Amino acid sequence: MSDDLVIRPIGKVESTLTDRADAPRQGDEGAPDAWLVFDESVREGLRDLRVGSEILLITWFDRARRDELLVHPRGDLARPETGVFSTRSPDRPNPLGLHRITILAIDGLRFQVRNLEALDGTPVVDLKPVLGDLTER
Amino acid sequence: MSDDLVIRPIGKVESTLTDRADAPRQGDEGAPDAWLVFDESVREGLRDLRVGSEILLITWFDRARRDELLVHPRGDLARPETGVFSTRSPDRPNPLGLHRITILAIDGLRFQVRNLEALDGTPVVDLKPVLGDLTER
Repeated sequence: MSDDLVIRPIGKVESTLTDRADAPRQGDEGAPDAWLVFDESVREGLRDLRVGSEILLITWFDRARRDELLVHPRGDLARPETGVFSTRSPDRPNPLGLHRITILAIDGLRFQVRNLEALDGTPVVDLKPVLGDLTER
Repeated sequence: MSDDLVIRPIGKVESTLTDRADAPRQGDEGAPDAWLVFDESVREGLRDLRVGSEILLITWFDRARRDELLVHPRGDLARPETGVFSTRSPDRPNPLGLHRITILAIDGLRFQVRNLEALDGTPVVDLKPVLGDLTER
């Protein structure tokens, strides 16, 4: 059964961000444009994504610590320790990143995106549409 | 390295929903109130969550198919097949569910929540705050 809970990455991030100390806290706080490079095996699943769309991206913070339950929000030691599930810290038991990004360009399996603070090489796990009103689903 | 991409569930869903055919398509389309039951090992990480808060929940759809790349949106055969990453289908390469829920009650490690369409027994993977304006982070 535990075999069912293994993430199989569908691609990876290409970014000029390589050091966690340099990464912005959130994508809309000065992240550079980056690329998502997908595996050939998921090509068909990507076919309805369009330039200009705003989507949700799930990544796996592969350089995070999984044993943290209390963190200082935004790494600011002046702020009191907070339960990790009330924060967006990458350090958490299952280090999934959730990013709201915009697709800037599509070149085959390469997608250029805006507002992604993930580091170069970060595994890409999933993409989902932002849910609109009931009538648009 | 692949060992790093193993999800370790932090709890599970308790719900009256047991059959996928009966589950609503999204949590705000008639899902019953449900409970999240967390593992003792993550108690400290939960301590700043409050009744009334709206949060994001990530689950693992353990009864989903991982080999689907094209689906009919909302299971409606009248709608054309769509690349899975443009849909919220549970059937997807990494079957993570993303749910926006409200905490109705907290009883130790048991949290009652509104708007959760996940089935009974679904593994709970992560909780994250909804991101507010820059000034509130």
